Amino acid sequence: MDFRARKKRAAVAVAAAGVDGLLVTHLPDVRYLCGFTGSSAALVLARGGATLFTDGRYTAQAKAEAKGTRVVIAKKPAVAAACEWMETAGIRRCGFDAAQTTVAVLESMRKAVSSGVRRGMFVSVGSLIARLREVKDSDEITLMRSAANLGCRLFDGMLDYLEPGLTEVAVAAELEHAARLAGAEAMSFETIVASGERSALPHGRASTVKLPKRGFVTLDFGVVLDGYCSDMTRTVHLGRALEGEREVYDAVLEAQEAAVAAVRPGVTSGDVDEAARSVLRRAGLDKYFSHSTGHGVGLEIHEGPRLAAKQTQVLEQGMVITIEPGVYMQGKFGLRIEDMVLVTATSGEVLTPSVKAWIEL
Amino acid sequence: MDFRARKKRAAVAVAAAGVDGLLVTHLPDVRYLCGFTGSSAALVLARGGATLFTDGRYTAQAKAEAKGTRVVIAKKPAVAAACEWMETAGIRRCGFDAAQTTVAVLESMRKAVSSGVRRGMFVSVGSLIARLREVKDSDEITLMRSAANLGCRLFDGMLDYLEPGLTEVAVAAELEHAARLAGAEAMSFETIVASGERSALPHGRASTVKLPKRGFVTLDFGVVLDGYCSDMTRTVHLGRALEGEREVYDAVLEAQEAAVAAVRPGVTSGDVDEAARSVLRRAGLDKYFSHSTGHGVGLEIHEGPRLAAKQTQVLEQGMVITIEPGVYMQGKFGLRIEDMVLVTATSGEVLTPSVKAWIEL
Ligand SMILES: [Mn+2]
Ligand SMILES: [Mn+2]
Repeated sequence: MDFRARKKRAAVAVAAAGVDGLLVTHLPDVRYLCGFTGSSAALVLARGGATLFTDGRYTAQAKAEAKGTRVVIAKKPAVAAACEWMETAGIRRCGFDAAQTTVAVLESMRKAVSSGVRRGMFVSVGSLIARLREVKDSDEITLMRSAANLGCRLFDGMLDYLEPGLTEVAVAAELEHAARLAGAEAMSFETIVASGERSALPHGRASTVKLPKRGFVTLDFGVVLDGYCSDMTRTVHLGRALEGEREVYDAVLEAQEAAVAAVRPGVTSGDVDEAARSVLRRAGLDKYFSHSTGHGVGLEIHEGPRLAAKQTQVLEQGMVITIEPGVYMQGKFGLRIEDMVLVTATSGEVLTPSVKAWIEL
Repeated sequence: MDFRARKKRAAVAVAAAGVDGLLVTHLPDVRYLCGFTGSSAALVLARGGATLFTDGRYTAQAKAEAKGTRVVIAKKPAVAAACEWMETAGIRRCGFDAAQTTVAVLESMRKAVSSGVRRGMFVSVGSLIARLREVKDSDEITLMRSAANLGCRLFDGMLDYLEPGLTEVAVAAELEHAARLAGAEAMSFETIVASGERSALPHGRASTVKLPKRGFVTLDFGVVLDGYCSDMTRTVHLGRALEGEREVYDAVLEAQEAAVAAVRPGVTSGDVDEAARSVLRRAGLDKYFSHSTGHGVGLEIHEGPRLAAKQTQVLEQGMVITIEPGVYMQGKFGLRIEDMVLVTATSGEVLTPSVKAWIEL
């Protein structure tokens, strides 16, 4: 990982925000900037350098993971130690991320510096590091390809496993077991297995319901590899389609593919959302598409950009996003199809190439 | 679940805090008070009633889960809708939990009310609901017994499975698979499997290292049942003990049992910590006991009270805590033994009765 380049880009953003330094406390941001994965951490970016504060439990780990970043082992909470250090270092305007800082932590930051400098010391500067993280560097893209690939292999394996009468939790258990054995550190989020009528739930956690003889099964899952999340959804059909199911499936697939085809640098995330939504609108199904089209993914399962109606954020080369339209008809059935897509120089590259055509098992 | 009684207790705490209402946004607190488990929620306690704000994705779920609580489906973010509603309802001093509210959310709360009432409207009142949640009611104790029992059955099952040459992740995968099939919704936290030299890591996530022919294996894991977490740790030995291992094991076990024996209403959490720590001190091992003795557990894996040196919080009947001393000798070995313990009227009742005596496999 090229932490040096990341810290450099961060330093540019800090300078542009008009502050002397930045206090980073959101753990995925800390990991992004220096590699440290411990649970107690505060990173200060200032004066062209970075200093990581953590506590005695992490002495060895910090040294090993945060190579190239100065490490301070503090006796007090990492945030307080970082703030005291900044005061001593002469930093008088420190940026912080209001979306990742609780009111209580801000209070502890204020208390850690002397009253003479407290006023004006801490400045909310937006989510600078989260914004940097939206555009993945080549190391990250390599890891995310691996995670996405593993997700596809696991899905393909499930096609041999799925059959009527299995409970949804048994399906989730099998998938998660295979993921672990294949090297996943964790699942990206609670595995969704939603079958039969439950397929109409956009977030149907695996339940003890049994897979039907005829009906949809939606699998939405992801694996974490080296900290990076994958995310994909496929909906397959057990037995022959019932009336109307095939038509809805084809409409969702067309919407999904239209949105993927709309991805390229320079378009807005709202344009991509509209590409999916307009297909479903023409099919009279848009009222059943009750969520947004996608989200960025990386060290966290949900990152920027957000792909939703009217969003104006412009897609950039290197972003990794999901495209996941769905249709949910309460009491009947539902389905969703989701890929991870890399924004390349000219288009969107699907990182999760598992088959999307209608599958009948 | 007796949500009515919980809301009543909460109303008393709100009145005692000297505010007209409380805005609850921490999702486990919302679930505790009304049963709702959706990801978009704000609950207002005011004027002897409770009102849940969520969005259109959760219409059916909120109705089903939050019976007995008024539900408002909002078009705007739940927090903003709740604040506007409070202004209309004439609430002029609203408490909030600074430890669970980001600076950005507080800003959005302020923006949601008109400038005439903004000043003095939002008052940090501590973690009122988290404090209530420390003492479990009988429904919760029933659920936590079930979760703890399931943990024990899973551990017992692992005794037949563990053998040299298996990777730590294979062990975690087996355990998690069995947990899922037995009905666990999720694991309480990332399963820890730490073997051989890695047993000296207090938080050794399962790795691709293979279990040794001779050495310790520490399993620290929990399951979630109906939202409630279990938590337990056992350390077993593969093959015959190497020099010194048995003595350290016995000291940790003695420390753990001493702390369990110290549990009763009226003692401080620091007393319980000291009961464990003093045993290890006498054995000359306290410098290797590098963390606190335990924590409360419930809807979240880490809740109050915190059992650490010099903590003055008094234990109360109905609290469910962990007792988990350990010894970690870098480069050699380590071990930890952890139970969940219910504070009864007179003592501590171990909810995780799996065998703690030395096990050699
Ligand atoms: Mn997704
Ligand atoms: Mn624990």
